[in-house]
Amino acid sequence: MQIEERLIRHLGHQFSDPVLFSLALTHRSLGMPNNERMEFLGDSVLNMVMAEHIYVRYPKLSEGDLSRLRAHLVCAETLYSIAQDLDLGNYLKLGEGELKSGGFRRQSILSDTLEALIGAIFLDAGFDAARQAILKLYASRIDAVDPVSLSKDAKTTLQEYLQNKHIGLPVYSVIEVSGQAHDQHFEVECYVAAFNLRTKGEGSSRRTAEQAAAQSAYDRVQQP
Amino acid sequence: MQIEERLIRHLGHQFSDPVLFSLALTHRSLGMPNNERMEFLGDSVLNMVMAEHIYVRYPKLSEGDLSRLRAHLVCAETLYSIAQDLDLGNYLKLGEGELKSGGFRRQSILSDTLEALIGAIFLDAGFDAARQAILKLYASRIDAVDPVSLSKDAKTTLQEYLQNKHIGLPVYSVIEVSGQAHDQHFEVECYVAAFNLRTKGEGSSRRTAEQAAAQSAYDRVQQP
Repeated sequence: MQIEERLIRHLGHQFSDPVLFSLALTHRSLGMPNNERMEFLGDSVLNMVMAEHIYVRYPKLSEGDLSRLRAHLVCAETLYSIAQDLDLGNYLKLGEGELKSGGFRRQSILSDTLEALIGAIFLDAGFDAARQAILKLYASRIDAVDPVSLSKDAKTTLQEYLQNKHIGLPVYSVIEVSGQAHDQHFEVECYVAAFNLRTKGEGSSRRTAEQAAAQSAYDRVQQP
Repeated sequence: MQIEERLIRHLGHQFSDPVLFSLALTHRSLGMPNNERMEFLGDSVLNMVMAEHIYVRYPKLSEGDLSRLRAHLVCAETLYSIAQDLDLGNYLKLGEGELKSGGFRRQSILSDTLEALIGAIFLDAGFDAARQAILKLYASRIDAVDPVSLSKDAKTTLQEYLQNKHIGLPVYSVIEVSGQAHDQHFEVECYVAAFNLRTKGEGSSRRTAEQAAAQSAYDRVQQP
């Protein structure tokens, strides 16, 4: 257990039941029992703590903006970056196959394990302890996020809308690039196969042109 | 407030802050402020309380089965049936348009309002109070659910798998029906457009044939 003291310190939670801590680090490649059920639980604890935190922190944000903000905070990429800060790969308990193929570096394994650790803290000491640990782990990410810029992302809005209707994702393609290297102009098409819908967007970068095309597509698919 | 005493009794929670209770019942058709942000919060509280409850109650269920079980319990249909038990439509605060068009009977408005009430209880008195209210509201539904039969649904398993990969949903079609009326035999095709995959299933009902075709499709798309 000695080498795990560093992880425990970073988590900010001293486990009463070390079996929970150990299980949270155990990948399914080692057989049963493993951390998959704990990951399910931890995911829901994380979602709720984030919901509460941003609800209180941003009293003017709409439900849709709160949803987007939370999705950004709890996504696998954010979890993975926190797992890397914790050097979580050093503490994983993996089966031989995963060990050989570098599973301790894999994004999905690391982000799932972090969720399992959150579940383990909740089981060990309850909701308040889990909330405290999550807000400590997330402090710098929460401070860094700009809810206003997130709420303006038309590509995300369109994607969420289509997923909600169980429709395949849109495809973006560059139709034309014109102008000098330092002053380029992009024209991009957004194609939504299920509606056979093509919209165009323009801008000084590929990203802004895609956002414009996504906004136009979103406006069109929303029409009755 | 008198007429709302009955709802409060059914919820099993006496609000310290009646403004929260009132806001939870206020639909966006009345303008701002309304219950939409509270619904976002209540949804996440409900998800977490259910996750914890079934995690503890079913120690042998896999992560996938826990997910399916929770999805069944927190879906709009289940929320709607609980909202009906509470006669929630009688307490809604709706704008004139929604009043005239029967918004107090609409499934989405009622299920969203129940989530908002859960959010309001959490804000009023914290996690344990919200958990207590949720488990009281859900007691008979939780007892009635059979996690084993839920876990055997191949169509759901396939659908979740495809959604997770952002792939459009499968299409089922009956190819052949043979036999007498009391002894029919169905042959059904499952088509997954993204993989151009067609599988067949047979059975004595359309449903069992679809399940067999879905299982076959799921087995195929999972192959590396």
